[in-house]
Amino acid sequence: MTIILGIDPGSQRTGFGLISAEGGRHRYVTSGVIRLPKGPLPERLNIIFRSLNTIIDEYRPSEAAVEEVFMAKSAGSALKLGQARGAAVVACVGADLAVAEYTARQIKKAVVGTGAASKEQIQHMVKVLLKLSASPQEDAADALAAAICHAHAREGLNNMSEPMLAARMRRGRLSNKVSS
Amino acid sequence: MTIILGIDPGSQRTGFGLISAEGGRHRYVTSGVIRLPKGPLPERLNIIFRSLNTIIDEYRPSEAAVEEVFMAKSAGSALKLGQARGAAVVACVGADLAVAEYTARQIKKAVVGTGAASKEQIQHMVKVLLKLSASPQEDAADALAAAICHAHAREGLNNMSEPMLAARMRRGRLSNKVSS
Repeated sequence: MTIILGIDPGSQRTGFGLISAEGGRHRYVTSGVIRLPKGPLPERLNIIFRSLNTIIDEYRPSEAAVEEVFMAKSAGSALKLGQARGAAVVACVGADLAVAEYTARQIKKAVVGTGAASKEQIQHMVKVLLKLSASPQEDAADALAAAICHAHAREGLNNMSEPMLAARMRRGRLSNKVSS
Repeated sequence: MTIILGIDPGSQRTGFGLISAEGGRHRYVTSGVIRLPKGPLPERLNIIFRSLNTIIDEYRPSEAAVEEVFMAKSAGSALKLGQARGAAVVACVGADLAVAEYTARQIKKAVVGTGAASKEQIQHMVKVLLKLSASPQEDAADALAAAICHAHAREGLNNMSEPMLAARMRRGRLSNKVSS
């Protein structure tokens, strides 16, 4: 069984979500949002770093998945996002987690089945796929979605969405190397 | 005596420079450049993080100074720079250093006397001010300049450039609270 930590970094809120993956089955472990107070940036980055360290210590994930951002609205927002992302990534690599990066499109495709899914669709599908009683908060859902995307990638199921996978599993056709 | 770590973060090269500050006198300790290999971003951020941790362990600075970046050429470069900066900042705050941020203008003004100084002027003035036998590499010079700027700020000399300060010191007029 592998514990995967998904992270949705942001300079105001950083979402995290942990799932366990075993034989193509993904189970919810925990998720949440690290809310960052207003104030000096170094302290905010430190909160991301220390919070993720605490989460890693407690749940012992061995792999992490972070959304790869190519573009941002502006250079200013890219800089803020980049710093939050840098703090999150070093928290993971510093704790010896293998860090994988996925584009927003890859993550959406893995969870919803289309690269153009809305935030609400992601929240809904994460809830359904992980059999949760309620939709996770938006950033936590994005983090769980990144973790699910990574679970697919490591199982050689990169090109298969969770809904397709679920259908295959119901029909008893799941294998670790699915031919498309 | 306070050891100050100046950092000039970048996604290809991260400069660092350490000075000691005591009673308005600044001495060179060491400086250098962390060169980042091409390859996966998490690994590159990890190199920044671990290298700075090693430097902090060895030289035991208690304060750090990092250039505050408001603008970048593009959202893409801002994102890369932000991630490098985030990794550098958490290496410092994680090791309990107080991290101060200065604009490029503040740093240039402290070292050269004008906020519009060129890279070469910074290199030259850092060499002169710290009595080095040769100009430090560009990124190392920027890091040392950030450290010098911070030394000024903590000594209450924010509005005074090093050349002005040197002139005052020669005339025996240095005090910790200089009236402008």
